[in-house]
Amino acid sequence: MAQENDSFTTVEKSLHEHLPAEEKSEVLRILYGKPSPPLTIPQSAIDLAQERNFELASYTLKSLAATEQTRLPRLVRIGAIQNQILLPTDKPVVEQREALFKRISDIIEVAAQCGCNIVCMQEAWNMPFAFCTREKYPWSEFAESAEDGPTTVMLQELAKKYNMVVLSSILERDESDVLWNTTVVISNTGRYLGKSRKNHIPRVGDFNESTYYMEGDTGHPVFDTQFGRIGINICYGRHHPLNWLMFGVNGAEIVFNPSATVGNLSEPMWGIEARNAAIANSYYTVPINRVGTETFKNEFTSGDGKPAHNDFGHFYGSTYVASPDGTRTPGLSRTLDGLLVTEVDLNLCRQVKDKWGFRMTQRLDMYAKELAEAVKPGYKPPVIKG
Amino acid sequence: MAQENDSFTTVEKSLHEHLPAEEKSEVLRILYGKPSPPLTIPQSAIDLAQERNFELASYTLKSLAATEQTRLPRLVRIGAIQNQILLPTDKPVVEQREALFKRISDIIEVAAQCGCNIVCMQEAWNMPFAFCTREKYPWSEFAESAEDGPTTVMLQELAKKYNMVVLSSILERDESDVLWNTTVVISNTGRYLGKSRKNHIPRVGDFNESTYYMEGDTGHPVFDTQFGRIGINICYGRHHPLNWLMFGVNGAEIVFNPSATVGNLSEPMWGIEARNAAIANSYYTVPINRVGTETFKNEFTSGDGKPAHNDFGHFYGSTYVASPDGTRTPGLSRTLDGLLVTEVDLNLCRQVKDKWGFRMTQRLDMYAKELAEAVKPGYKPPVIKG
Repeated sequence: MAQENDSFTTVEKSLHEHLPAEEKSEVLRILYGKPSPPLTIPQSAIDLAQERNFELASYTLKSLAATEQTRLPRLVRIGAIQNQILLPTDKPVVEQREALFKRISDIIEVAAQCGCNIVCMQEAWNMPFAFCTREKYPWSEFAESAEDGPTTVMLQELAKKYNMVVLSSILERDESDVLWNTTVVISNTGRYLGKSRKNHIPRVGDFNESTYYMEGDTGHPVFDTQFGRIGINICYGRHHPLNWLMFGVNGAEIVFNPSATVGNLSEPMWGIEARNAAIANSYYTVPINRVGTETFKNEFTSGDGKPAHNDFGHFYGSTYVASPDGTRTPGLSRTLDGLLVTEVDLNLCRQVKDKWGFRMTQRLDMYAKELAEAVKPGYKPPVIKG
Repeated sequence: MAQENDSFTTVEKSLHEHLPAEEKSEVLRILYGKPSPPLTIPQSAIDLAQERNFELASYTLKSLAATEQTRLPRLVRIGAIQNQILLPTDKPVVEQREALFKRISDIIEVAAQCGCNIVCMQEAWNMPFAFCTREKYPWSEFAESAEDGPTTVMLQELAKKYNMVVLSSILERDESDVLWNTTVVISNTGRYLGKSRKNHIPRVGDFNESTYYMEGDTGHPVFDTQFGRIGINICYGRHHPLNWLMFGVNGAEIVFNPSATVGNLSEPMWGIEARNAAIANSYYTVPINRVGTETFKNEFTSGDGKPAHNDFGHFYGSTYVASPDGTRTPGLSRTLDGLLVTEVDLNLCRQVKDKWGFRMTQRLDMYAKELAEAVKPGYKPPVIKG
């Protein structure tokens, strides 16, 4: 991709400021779908966000859904949190983690004031994204039990206190010391509901993360919570349409995509992939990316011919919500910590299925057969020579 | 979607005209990927396009690909044609078709002058998009043999004359009077190479096109032509990621998406879906949409509570090319006939596969198994109650 500019905040701000009114409405319609009206939130939340120095943006997409005769609206407020790390990466592991616990607790408190029913943080939110270093220590020490590690225990308290489903992406260490990239799902009662492991591992740029953890073996579970049916497609899995698809087949209404990705690698794809998934699968998607540049003590190389260095680029944030009807919200900033609060009506998922019919026209039986053939050794694709 | 404005030409023009330079480069990088530099084409072609009253836009994406040591660049020029119908829809079928033959021959001549190696027209290019009327006649009379119907015969001459692969989407009538929505592939020698039938049929808005034709039975063939390996995903198939995926599994380097779709239905999705497919499958995609508003003699209703009417909306053109690295070209106009000429280096497909590794990390075996289970009656999705 072309060279990014770390200080540029968001595309949406630029469009709003510079386009003349009559063209702006067309540009925004074509690029963003229907409008994302502001959602009114308490002044106390706005004040607290300012005081704590993070962006707070709030939208309501509830008017995208029609009123039904036989179901009440199913309004849910989704909180998506993006953040920088806080301490230098050579500080003790526990100190780094504790600082992030404090920061995220502070943001979740504001999410609660905004009435969020579900919150999700970015990928591996409780640690620096150190997989570029290829060093096993101290980074593997951030790995912990999904079920009762310190991060899960800390969040269970908050989930219960705020009556909020919490999705927490961590580096997981299981009982036999296999590591996984895992999202823990905590119910709004504070109960550990289960986990979803990252299915697809990058082998790109600075990362072959299979150095650290295994390809997920949990398939495509859907968590049927009080606030909707939730799936989690972690980071690089957003490049894989089949990963998104199986969560849809299994009934998800919201699929989160906790991520960690940098501008020069993936930014032009960011607005495309999760949004395409929302459209194709008639569910909401919530791609979340960290922000900031993370520096490591020991230099490393990136297989790109450049000299050894201590960071691998700028995480561009830009967290947003995409709706099954093709609409998306503006993104959070490319540079600041932020909380994105989005009110949605889950009824829209079924309404879009009824309108567009993608599930009914999907011909999964045909693809099950074609894929079963395609994965056989010696598969001969149907190629017509010309 | 919000109400469209039929006279608005393109988003890209608006961005270029109004954004200040320093922000423009960031907005365009994030929204469009790397730049699409102009491709120099002969003045005679420019003059002829002007005289014949259609937009001619040309870009080269060849610099996206790196120079390799063991393969020469594989430069191919793709011509994508969007057009309005010419005669009123109540004129005799043969007259309507002949007028379109003339128009498309005129545009293909210019494509030849621009050095196009492949041209593709929009869906059902040789007829009005009359499926909204639910009338069988006269529309079924536009259907013809894929192998030796008048449209194929006409284009075989041009393919041979200009040394050009031609992709022609028609309503096909087979020998047993079954109708299909089919793209005919004609080699640059003028030979009929084969056909690819539309796999997914819309049941949305004004259209249940299964009134007219059957779901495709040709699977996902790839045509290995002198100018690259080509697949065709017709219209509504672009909403189905598995349709795109199988063309990729079968080795396609360019997948065309001849379409016919209107603004209020699909426009915010148009820039997303084919581009996502290019990214996910490491091939070029070429979505092509017709332009204009088509009026029919007999009024019809659209199941939307509105009074009977004689047209169902504005086809918004906006034909573009998406590259496997996430870049896309600007779109053709939303309102005018046009020819988009794009030079690409097919070597980029393999380079992007090597860089991103999507094929290697795709885990098709897992999905083949999951889908095989999911299509069984009584399938119980993995849902965790919370």
